[in-house]
Order: sequence, then C-alpha cells, then structure tokens
Amino acid sequence: MSSNEAIDYAKKNGATFVAELKDLLRIPSISTTPERVGDVRRAAEFVAEGLRSAGMENVRLIETTTQQRKGHPLVYADWLNAPGRPTVLCYGHYDVQPPDPLDEWKSPPFEPDERDGNIYARGAVDDKGQMWMHVKALESLLKTDGKLPVNIRVIVEGEEEVGGEGIAAFVREHGDQLQADAALVSDTEMFAPDLPTLCVGLRGMIYTELEVRGAAQDLHSGMYGGAAPNPFVALAQMIARLKREDGRIAIPGFYDGIEEPTKAELEAWRSLPFDEEHYRKTEVGSTELTGEEMFSVLERTWSRPTMDVHGMPGGFIGAGAKTVIPAKALAKISFRLVPGMKPEETFAKYKAFVEEVCPKGVQVDVRMIHSGEPIVVSTDNEYIRAAQQAMAQVFGKETVFVRGGGSIPIVGDFVRELGIPTVMMGFGLPDDNLHAPNEKFHIANFHRGIESIIRFFEIVGQSA
Amino acid sequence: MSSNEAIDYAKKNGATFVAELKDLLRIPSISTTPERVGDVRRAAEFVAEGLRSAGMENVRLIETTTQQRKGHPLVYADWLNAPGRPTVLCYGHYDVQPPDPLDEWKSPPFEPDERDGNIYARGAVDDKGQMWMHVKALESLLKTDGKLPVNIRVIVEGEEEVGGEGIAAFVREHGDQLQADAALVSDTEMFAPDLPTLCVGLRGMIYTELEVRGAAQDLHSGMYGGAAPNPFVALAQMIARLKREDGRIAIPGFYDGIEEPTKAELEAWRSLPFDEEHYRKTEVGSTELTGEEMFSVLERTWSRPTMDVHGMPGGFIGAGAKTVIPAKALAKISFRLVPGMKPEETFAKYKAFVEEVCPKGVQVDVRMIHSGEPIVVSTDNEYIRAAQQAMAQVFGKETVFVRGGGSIPIVGDFVRELGIPTVMMGFGLPDDNLHAPNEKFHIANFHRGIESIIRFFEIVGQSA
Repeated sequence: MSSNEAIDYAKKNGATFVAELKDLLRIPSISTTPERVGDVRRAAEFVAEGLRSAGMENVRLIETTTQQRKGHPLVYADWLNAPGRPTVLCYGHYDVQPPDPLDEWKSPPFEPDERDGNIYARGAVDDKGQMWMHVKALESLLKTDGKLPVNIRVIVEGEEEVGGEGIAAFVREHGDQLQADAALVSDTEMFAPDLPTLCVGLRGMIYTELEVRGAAQDLHSGMYGGAAPNPFVALAQMIARLKREDGRIAIPGFYDGIEEPTKAELEAWRSLPFDEEHYRKTEVGSTELTGEEMFSVLERTWSRPTMDVHGMPGGFIGAGAKTVIPAKALAKISFRLVPGMKPEETFAKYKAFVEEVCPKGVQVDVRMIHSGEPIVVSTDNEYIRAAQQAMAQVFGKETVFVRGGGSIPIVGDFVRELGIPTVMMGFGLPDDNLHAPNEKFHIANFHRGIESIIRFFEIVGQSA
Repeated sequence: MSSNEAIDYAKKNGATFVAELKDLLRIPSISTTPERVGDVRRAAEFVAEGLRSAGMENVRLIETTTQQRKGHPLVYADWLNAPGRPTVLCYGHYDVQPPDPLDEWKSPPFEPDERDGNIYARGAVDDKGQMWMHVKALESLLKTDGKLPVNIRVIVEGEEEVGGEGIAAFVREHGDQLQADAALVSDTEMFAPDLPTLCVGLRGMIYTELEVRGAAQDLHSGMYGGAAPNPFVALAQMIARLKREDGRIAIPGFYDGIEEPTKAELEAWRSLPFDEEHYRKTEVGSTELTGEEMFSVLERTWSRPTMDVHGMPGGFIGAGAKTVIPAKALAKISFRLVPGMKPEETFAKYKAFVEEVCPKGVQVDVRMIHSGEPIVVSTDNEYIRAAQQAMAQVFGKETVFVRGGGSIPIVGDFVRELGIPTVMMGFGLPDDNLHAPNEKFHIANFHRGIESIIRFFEIVGQSA
C-alpha cells in the first residue's frame, strides 16, 4: 500500500506526537468555566499551529457568537488539491469537561502523567488525544507523500462540552464552507480493548435546570419549620415523581414514537463480548445496576432514553450544620434521548409535567441549558465500509458496529445541514474515565488511531 | 425602686453599650467553620474582658473538648456576695451562624451597620446582642450600687450553633460549678413588637447527614445513564418517601408519644395577635404556607415535629453543564422534635426507615451531627413570675407566654443536670432574620432588654 511511508513516519515520530499531545493537555481549556476563556483560546491556537505545521492550508480561527455570549473559536483548515477525489470533513473538539472533584485525581488533571501505557489528564481521550490523531495522520501523509489521497477539511470546536451552539450556528449559516462527502469523528470508544469498533448511533439529550423558589429569603428552620415551604423537599418530591424507582420516566408521552433498534442490530449487540457482571464490577462499581429491567444493559445505555440528576446547588453545603430553610434550590437534570424523540418536544412534555406536579407553596422554573438530537448512521455506506476495512487492517480483527449512549450533537447537524454521513471511528476504551477523575488515553490506541486514519484516507482515495 | 440608679446608668451609657456590641459583632466567630477557630476565641476573650470590666469576679475561659475535636471555650464569671439570696445562672452564646449566602446581605455581615433603628450584622440578635444585655445589666447594677441584688453566675458558650456539645459535657461533669436556682437565657424573640413575651417551650432537634453512594467513581451520564445508579435520584426518592406532600412525616412511629399542648395553652395561643396572611406575606414571603393543615401555624411551628432539608452537597454545582453521574450525594436533613419525643429514639426510627426505603444499587449512610431535647417550662414558678413582672413594667403591657420552634439544647441540660428552670426572656423580633442574610437587632429592644434584666434581678432579690 502507498500509505506505508506515512505509517512509517508516524511510527518514527510517535514519541514526538505524544509529547505534543501532552503540551496540548497542559492547557486547561474548560469551556464551561468563564474564567478559562483565555485558556480555551490558547488551546485553539495550539491546534491551529499544529495544522499549519502539518502542511494544511487556509488555517484560521473562526469566531463564534451565540445568543447568550461570545463563544469559543472554531479552528478551520483544508487541503483541497485532489480533484475528482472525495472530500472528508475531519471534526474534533479541543475543549474539556471541568476536572472536579479534584481530590480524586491521582495526578493533577492538567499535568499529563504517563502510567502503565496510558496518558492521564483531563481531555486525554475526550477529545484532545483523538483529535490530535487526525492532525498527526494528515502530517504523516503530507510530510512523506507531499499530498493527501483525498480532499480534507478540518473543523475543530471549543464548545462540545457545553452544547456546541457556536459550531451548530456555523454549520447552519456557512455550510458551504464545510462542503464534503463524509465526516470523520474520533470521539467515541471501542467496545473492548483490541476490538475495532465503529459507532453508528448516538443518543441525543436535553440538559436542564429546575429551579424551585419558596420563601422570599432564607429562613431559620426552628422558627419556620413546619409552615414554610422547603424548596429542596419540593425538588426531591418532583424528582421522585419524574423517575420511578423501577427506572421508568413518569412524564406522560415520554416514550411515544421511540424507534426501536432493528432485530438484526439487537442480535449483533447480543453477540458482542459483554459481561454484565464484569461491567457492573469494574466499570460502574455499584452493588447493582439499575434502570429498566426489561431491557438489556446495552439497550438501556444505547437505545433507551433516561434521566439523570447531576447536582443540586443551593442551600448549605459546607461542613457542619446550618439550620436554614433555603429560599431556593436548583437541580441540574438531563435526559438522554433516542431516535424518534425530539429535544424540543421532550422538553415541552417535561416542563408541563414538572409544572403540574410542583408542590404547593413553591414556584418552579425550568430552563433548557443545551440540547442535541439523537442520530443513527446507516451501515450501508462506502465511508463506513472504508473505515471498517481500515480498522480491521490495523487491529487484525473484524470491526463491530455499536451505538454510543452519549451525545455528539454535531453529527446530527452534519446529517441535517450538510446531508453527509459521519464515520465515528473512536479509539477510547471503556475504562478511560471520560468526564471523571483520572481520565486517560491508552497510548497504543493513539498510535493505532493515527494508522487507522491514514489507511481510511487511502482507502477512500482509492475507491474514487 | 432601688433599681432606678442602675437603669439611669444604663440609659446614660446606652451609646457606649451599642458601640461595644458593634466591636463584638465585628469578630466573625463562626463556630462551624474550622478556619474561624481563632476568631471564635477572640470573641470569647472579648466577652471575658466585658465581664471583668463590669465588675464580675472569677472571670475565666474554660476549655472544652468533645469526642471529635477540641471545642471552643466557655466564658465563666460569678458574683456570689449576696448570702441568703437566690442565684441566677445567666447563659448566652458568642458564636454565630455562617453568613452565606453573602451576596444577599445589604451590608457586610461582619461590619455592623445601623439603619432605621436597627443594627445589621451576623449575630446581632442571635445571640451576641442579647448576651451583651446581660453583661451590661450586671455592669449597670455593680457600677451604681457596688453590689448585685442576687447571686449571679455567668456561662457563655461558643458552640451553640453547632450543637453545644462542650457546654453539655461541662454541665454534666461540673454541674456543681454552675449551681443556681434558676437560669436566665435571652436567645428568643418577642411575639410582636412591643409585646413582652416569655418563651416557655422549645422544640428539640436531630441534625443529620444522609449520604448515598452508587458507582465507585463519577461516571459519564451518556455512557452509563440508564444502567448506573444515580445517588441524587435515590436521595430524592428517599426524601419524598420521608415527607409526604401533605407535610406528614412517613417514618413509622414518628408521632408516637407526642405530648399535646394543654387546652389552656392552645386557647392562649389563639388569643395572640397572629395574622396568618400577614405572617405568610411579610415573614415567609411564599405564595402559600405548607405543612399539616389540621394544625394552626403556631402549632405547626411550636408543638408539631417536622423535617427540613438544608442542602444537598456533591455532584456538579458550578455554572453551566457537566454530564456526570456523581458517585455519591449528600443531604443535610434535620427534624424538629416536640415534648414526648426523644432524639435518640427518633434517630433510630429515621435510620431504620431510610435503610428500608433505600433504592437498589445505592448504599445509604445516616449520621447524627447533633441533637437537642425538646423542653417545656412550667409557668407556675417564682422566676417566671418575676420575669413576667419585670417585662410588664418596662413595656407597660401584660407579658404573654409562647413557645419557640427552635432549639436551645442547654435549657434541657439545665433541667436535667442542674434541676433548675430556665427563664427565656428574649428581645428579638419576628423579622430579625435569624440565621439568614441581613440579621438585625432592634436597638430599642437592646436597651429595654437591659432594663428588663435589671428589674428581673431586683424582683428576684426582693422576693428572697
């Protein structure tokens, strides 16, 4: 194969690639934290510089603005010198989740630490490490061959962890600048170590805040307890009404219109190497798994909607005791959606239900923080087949198709606005601690990812 | 009356007394905050110095230790040179509640601000201002008469807001050093402005933490949502099981053995100037009052037990969105108890119930932070009668008897360990914002309090 030279280059320069990635991981580009806006921009500039050195053209930052605030910039690059060949749009994100709780990290989240063949850092796998594979695959091809086997556009965003409004607006309004035949996203995981995996479905989500207000101000629970409304008690009662103890969501019409996976897909899932007891013990670590018992764990996390509470700010959260009836309480609540559900419709049903069950003496206010649509990609597609083949070559095993329980809203935007399918070729591992303390990326997968991407570009180029 | 000179002295020096109180209020003696330990001690020393200047004898700090930690010191003083006369034990506390939420204070909590005849500061009324009345009443008598009409012991603690374990242990182990015929506590409020009020009953309490643990570590809600237990959802379900929407506590046996107020007491409460609609609007400020509808608001807050949630630490509480399933969640939950209930017994019933209703997949851990017994003082008592008379003289109105919904655990200890009744002669007002932002003390009441206390000592002395 003509990609041998590029693969050799990637192997020879592997240590340098890792060192560069560590530099990127040192930048605390937490997109949700207003104080980090400068760091987020620094990460964008780092990525732009990486694309420039790789030999990409038209590298630039694109500013974004959303209704609420000035957004974090997009990084754009292209190389469009392969006429007659397909164009692949490479997507990634350089922003990361907040690192808290900090005291549970074994090494500081923004000081990348190599242990047991892994890099530990916030963003190692989600998504700096995987996005950097794209940059390094392009560099390996351009530095050895002087050209690419396909046309490439690169778009890297800095708001994936906060809903990606900026890129969504850009895709909607300037879709012509991203014209391509398929998108490549490396922001998912393999089903098991050494098992090449393509993700062909993602859940959508709505992330909301439920605010409950009772008294006009904080009150002493001795003096007013028994007569004054307690917003935390009210919130608890409402949450208990939203999700039953058997895991079912009690919002009327919540499950209406859900598209079940095909029989063939369900059968393929059943043949995956999944050990529920192992999953419970080593990944979740709880005494029992929860949720809708009539569905398998893979269905519960891939093709069933759910609700989670992420935190309940307000009131007294310090050490010790404070006998306060807080004037207000908040719950951060999100729902994962599956094909057949629409974020706006689900939000409307949720809002109506919450307003209906709101206990007396308190007012409730429901706010949508961000949302993303669920998507499914057809496997009957030349780009999916090319990716399947590329990964099988690198791993020496047949590639499996799975879905992901998380949300990558941009994949839905690519379908809707650009009319292109997305290849979700991810190299994370199930125990990579995404969004949690001690996030890591398996270094071997970083290298296999670069090789898989090089091969993918080659195969797509040859098929033209 | 022979107290005229002392009352004149208090009037002449009123401005100085207020200035001194402001100095005391500047010390952020927050007993629950470990970083404030030095400030708490500074407040103790300030009080000791005040007692010394007043002319009290044997002034000293008494160190306390509890099982968990070194405690904050007690301040002791006495004047025992009136043989044959009764001994009154004056109690107060110099520690304060945390001031948060800070951004709701109109002036900083530890920079006393005088507005509309009030002093605004954390601790203004609870209890620095009221405790300082005792010190100034003693000073007024000693500086004019050279002696006191009764024997006096003073004990001022620094842990009232965190359960008062130190003083409880001291009373238990060194009760002989506090021997007296009655205690005087000024840590309650008047039922209405200008209405002299004695508090003859208090609710007890248990303050607890309910901790729920699910997964071994924080998880990504996209990947695990639907199968992994969510500790906040579990806590919400448990809280909803604990307190029904009609305000009833659902713990089996929770209401067993409760001693109802007497018919005469209930009748007296009905004749108090209480306007429920005014209370709802101006004190609580909610759209509706809540709780057990079959009981009046005064019963609900004075003679009925209840449950409140004060805050739910854990998870993501920052701005923006984080899609985490937290490994654990906590709820700070307290119960107010009424005569006939025992803290240990209520805690045991609560613990058993919570363990029974704990949803699957999570473990629950219930911790008692502190507790206090409910108490009722008989009104058929010479000290209560003396206080009734003293206040009536100062205010020119008949003194009413009420109960308080809060807890002053020491009052129970005085009954149990010292066998003495407590006179709860308080000068707070219903809108003084105890434990809340913008706590205040009506300056006129500070002065009337000092005069009432001087007269109380005189009347007790004369009756001997």
